[in-house]
Amino acid sequence: MATSGSSRYETEQLQKGCYYEWMSLQSKHIADLKEALMSQRSKENDRKLGELVGKIVDDFQKYTERRSELSHRCCSSYFAPSWNSSLENGLLWMGGCRPSSFIRVIYAMCGSQTETHLSEYLLKIDENVGDANNSTDGSMSDLTATQLAKINELHIKVIQKEDKITKKAANLQEDVADMPIAVTAYATDLVEAGVAVEDALDKHEECMAVVMAEADRLRFETLRKIVEVVTPVQAAEFLLAGKRLHVSLHEWGRVREEKRLGCARTGEASAAREDAGKSNRSATC
Amino acid sequence: MATSGSSRYETEQLQKGCYYEWMSLQSKHIADLKEALMSQRSKENDRKLGELVGKIVDDFQKYTERRSELSHRCCSSYFAPSWNSSLENGLLWMGGCRPSSFIRVIYAMCGSQTETHLSEYLLKIDENVGDANNSTDGSMSDLTATQLAKINELHIKVIQKEDKITKKAANLQEDVADMPIAVTAYATDLVEAGVAVEDALDKHEECMAVVMAEADRLRFETLRKIVEVVTPVQAAEFLLAGKRLHVSLHEWGRVREEKRLGCARTGEASAAREDAGKSNRSATC
Repeated sequence: MATSGSSRYETEQLQKGCYYEWMSLQSKHIADLKEALMSQRSKENDRKLGELVGKIVDDFQKYTERRSELSHRCCSSYFAPSWNSSLENGLLWMGGCRPSSFIRVIYAMCGSQTETHLSEYLLKIDENVGDANNSTDGSMSDLTATQLAKINELHIKVIQKEDKITKKAANLQEDVADMPIAVTAYATDLVEAGVAVEDALDKHEECMAVVMAEADRLRFETLRKIVEVVTPVQAAEFLLAGKRLHVSLHEWGRVREEKRLGCARTGEASAAREDAGKSNRSATC
Repeated sequence: MATSGSSRYETEQLQKGCYYEWMSLQSKHIADLKEALMSQRSKENDRKLGELVGKIVDDFQKYTERRSELSHRCCSSYFAPSWNSSLENGLLWMGGCRPSSFIRVIYAMCGSQTETHLSEYLLKIDENVGDANNSTDGSMSDLTATQLAKINELHIKVIQKEDKITKKAANLQEDVADMPIAVTAYATDLVEAGVAVEDALDKHEECMAVVMAEADRLRFETLRKIVEVVTPVQAAEFLLAGKRLHVSLHEWGRVREEKRLGCARTGEASAAREDAGKSNRSATC
């Protein structure tokens, strides 16, 4: 049975709502992480930080479970969501970010924090560095060789798993050129899809939903394993960085798109003014 | 230098125009191929068919070159185009179809034509088979073992090349979590992108455009090599099938989306009627 049009539309609205709830929860996570990282360092605080990190990872799992429920038979919209800018959609992998990019976030943080420490040391200008960055003990630039080796090992495994999932999705995409979709399309000129094709397309979306759920599980598992390897402070710094990157890319993409549309509207308005000018001139000629 | 908003908008409009021109050219190709395939088989006709196939392959190359020109610094829109339904966007690979799916089209055609011939033989009901399918000499189900081996060899090579391109795009996606984009995002709460980030995002789009052009070249080369392996009749049948599949998927995706929106509008209208009914009832209470 194909899912009816109206229920598909309702599902898409729920998907959108689920995404915006997640984005607003991420803003809360960012505020909570900042506050926790700014607090005086103590054993008690480390415990609280650990709890917060655990809660945030749990929240991500809940979000992926909700996405999975909502993607059943209506999965296509997750592969190029209308709520994303084209910049973000161009960065998507299986309806979300690449799990391997979590690890790139760690590498980039190590690099940038090491640079900051180096300039502090060379220029001896500690006063320009904020409170949070001052508490360098246990922060990302202090990852031990053992931690880095574990992260590197995880990176390799995650890339292998990503490749497997990419391959599954590729096979599903190729399958569309097979029966019964292909045969109906080849048989004659443009026809109504018909029940067989509609069912096949629904089936295709269901299979893509399974692949997306697998990708979501890999995203969650990568997050969980990173958090296991690093200290609570490092985990909090990593989550804060990742969330800021996500929220920033969403915002930058939106602004780039708005600028384009704004320019277009200004362009249209000035073209209209120009046209009006022309007609006025022709009226006065 | 970042591309200005207005020129990006103009480029996107040109991209859209280029796509619709291509879709309308595909409709012409379909009509031309059908006509040529329906004509009496003769040596002279085979030559004409060969010329038509060559022209269509050339037209595809011109289309990819135009896309490449238009994707410079404004490539994101090709990865989830606004002119596609979400069904089609979910099937996209590097801004187009998978080259390996061309070969799946051949396999599917072989299978379906063999089935047709088998039923003809078993049921001896030739009268239900149209003119085009009647001229089975040299059609897809008659691919020789040598041709099939060559197609199979091509399939393997194309998949390997697809994987390489997929890998390049994956690396570019991961790079976004690196400097300067990442560092600007990590540094503080939501900030304006700034020149460094805007330039980095433009650079990212440029690199994605290079990968898309490479994917387009692979699509074109795959098409060219298939046409070299098969006879003019088989090539024409293959192109006709591929184009019908593309046009059908575009149409089916559009109709599925319109049904959803239509249902939504009907839903909204009935909700409004219901609300109006409720106020009427409350007014009479």
